[in-house]
Order: sequence, then C-alpha cells, then structure tokens
Amino acid sequence: MGDETALTVDGDISGSNSRSHVLDVYPLNCYYFGSKQALSLNDETIADRVDRMKSNYAAHGLRTCVEAVILVELFKHPHVLLLQIRNCVFKLPGGRLRPGESEIDGLKRKLERKLSIGEEGSGLDWEVGECLGMWWRPDFETLLYPYLPPNVKKPKECIKLFLVKLPASRRFTVPKNFKLLAVPLCQIHEDHKTYGPIISGVPQLLSKFSFNIIEP
Amino acid sequence: MGDETALTVDGDISGSNSRSHVLDVYPLNCYYFGSKQALSLNDETIADRVDRMKSNYAAHGLRTCVEAVILVELFKHPHVLLLQIRNCVFKLPGGRLRPGESEIDGLKRKLERKLSIGEEGSGLDWEVGECLGMWWRPDFETLLYPYLPPNVKKPKECIKLFLVKLPASRRFTVPKNFKLLAVPLCQIHEDHKTYGPIISGVPQLLSKFSFNIIEP
Repeated sequence: MGDETALTVDGDISGSNSRSHVLDVYPLNCYYFGSKQALSLNDETIADRVDRMKSNYAAHGLRTCVEAVILVELFKHPHVLLLQIRNCVFKLPGGRLRPGESEIDGLKRKLERKLSIGEEGSGLDWEVGECLGMWWRPDFETLLYPYLPPNVKKPKECIKLFLVKLPASRRFTVPKNFKLLAVPLCQIHEDHKTYGPIISGVPQLLSKFSFNIIEP
Repeated sequence: MGDETALTVDGDISGSNSRSHVLDVYPLNCYYFGSKQALSLNDETIADRVDRMKSNYAAHGLRTCVEAVILVELFKHPHVLLLQIRNCVFKLPGGRLRPGESEIDGLKRKLERKLSIGEEGSGLDWEVGECLGMWWRPDFETLLYPYLPPNVKKPKECIKLFLVKLPASRRFTVPKNFKLLAVPLCQIHEDHKTYGPIISGVPQLLSKFSFNIIEP
C-alpha cells in the first residue's frame, strides 16, 4: 500500500482544496455468507412483463426502482456485489418501490429480503448513501438512458442507484436461487453485453471516489 | 414544462427523503459569444507527445488534468459545452495543472484562457463545483480507465472532471482556432467513436442530477 498512499498525495486527492470523495472499502473476508430459502421469481415471458408494467403504470404511474452499489475489496481492487439469477442475469441488489414508499425505506426492505436473514425487519440496518445515478425507460419496451430523452414527457420507469456503505463486518444471507458475486470494477467496465448498461457503467459512477482500502 | 414538473414529483426527486441533486440550467440564449486571438497549439506527433509526457513525468511525477462540464439548455434538453479543435477533436474545456497548482485554481486559469476575454485574471469568476469523475492513464501510451487498474502503482496521468455552474448570463470569448459547441446529452451518450471515452460518459456522470431548466 506504500505506493498507493503516495499516489493519493501526488494526485492532490487529499489536498485541502480537493472536492473529491474518499470511500472506505473493507476486504471481502470481513464478511460472512450464508443461504436461506429460495425467493419466488416471476417466471414470465417478456410479453407478460410488458403487460404487467402497463397495468401497474395505469394504476400507479411511473415505476421507480432502487438499486444498491455495494463494494468490497479483493486483490487490492474494489469489487461490486452482484446477484446472479439462473446462472445468467446479473443484477444489483434492489427492486421496485411500493406505491408511496420512500426510496431509502424501499431499498432497505429490498436489501433485507435479498441479502439478510429476515424477510423484513431483522434488525440489521443498511447505510444508504448518496444517489450515484438514474436511468430512464421512456417506454415499456425501449432501452434505458442516463437522462430523460428530449420530448419524453411520461417516462415509464426510473432506476436510481444508491451507494450503500458496508460496516467493517456483517453477515449476508442470500436466497438459494441467487448467487452473490463480487465482481471487480475492471471486469464490468464497458462490458454491456454481459452486465447490461447500468452495471457496466458503475465504474464510471464511482470514479469520483478514491478508495481507502482498510486492512483488517 | 407542466408535465415535467409533475414528473419531478412522481419520481420522488423533490421528496424529503430523496438524496438526488437538482441542477439549475439556463438556456443557451442567455449567453453571448465572441472570439479572440488564436491560441498556439502543440503541432506535435504522437511520438513527440509521448516524449514530452515522459520528460514531464520524470520532472514532476503524475500529470493531473482538470476539465469542466458546463451545461446550457436548448430544446428543453441539457447540452454540454465542448471545444472543437481543427474541425475534428472534441475536448471539454480545461487542461494540465502546473506543478503545485490547486485543481480549482488551475481549472479557473484554463477556463479564463479558453473561454474568457483575458489571458488570465480578467475578473470574471467561475463557480467550480463538485468532482464528477476521474480517469486514469496507467502508462504513457495506454487507454484511460475510470478506476486505477489493479497492479498499477504509478499511473502517468489523472484527468478530473468538475461540474462548473454558469450564472444566469455571461460572455464567452473563444480563441479563433477553437469552436465552442453545445452538444446534447442524447448525442454524446455512448458515442465513443466521435467523442472519446471521457466525453461520451458525461451523461452517466450527470445522471444523478435532475435538471431545473430556468426560462429567462
């Protein structure tokens, strides 16, 4: 770590006039992992999904999803925690808000459900930090954009990414039908094909931070 | 703007528990544009440039560049101000810090030189905001990454992007050999080929903001 500490000073990251951000990251081996009963998944076709989004939109308006960017350290490089479903799809932990639910409460509820022992309210808390970015879906079947495209007055979905800071230790309990993976920033950067536009852009969204890797 | 105002509420952006950011953006026609004497440019080959970077690195260590993300509104969509050089290369306004110079002072100096009347110290000030992202060049001839790649102990260059907020009106004075362009977010998003990795990623770096477009 000697060289990297020197680098921080060279780069003026710790300088008094710097407007950069420092983020503490703990090694993967600070955390414990267990499994719990499988979560039921929607086994629907794309057409079913579009129909469900349309009827939900008619009832509740804009769909808002909240997702967590959670980091651990491995091989002196930050890794993002991703859930893998059915050995193919990668997702940031999170999900859809209930009507009227706040973003923070909704994200904590989803993290409880997907990463903690209890279904809800197990007592462990999650430190939800700043919003890192937002993606918009202008129509039910279209692509996502990191801005509201011109002339789109009524987008159908907004996906908001929040930084979630881990404590120095914690236990993760993951449903049996999900895999929890720690994937290095250098692997997901610009790999749209494997990870999709949102996850493959996470390294950029984190690029303003300098990482303070804490050895146990 | 009626629908967009409603959208802000739907999206919970203005909600009390939101951690999103609101950014005021003024229309392009709030600003005045003039020209001034051409700036001398380095007419060097790539090999010359690598040699210059190497000797500068030997003398001063890590090269730090600071660049400004400046927004205006046109057709109800945010546009980024880019400088175009020789009808081909697009750049964010900014440049290299002098040894020992602070990031904020250096960026203000570069903005004076490239976008204001005086060479330096014309009196107009620039509101340099938060750091949006950083890109690293591990070696003199290699690609840029939005993180420090694993095992890179001595990167050669760090490019830091700062949000620069415009006042409700101002005059820009641009060297005759540069063109100042306002390019819509939807045009630069993911267009690596035209704009390079840094500029084409700016829409993502701005995606956490909701834009408050101020009509004059």
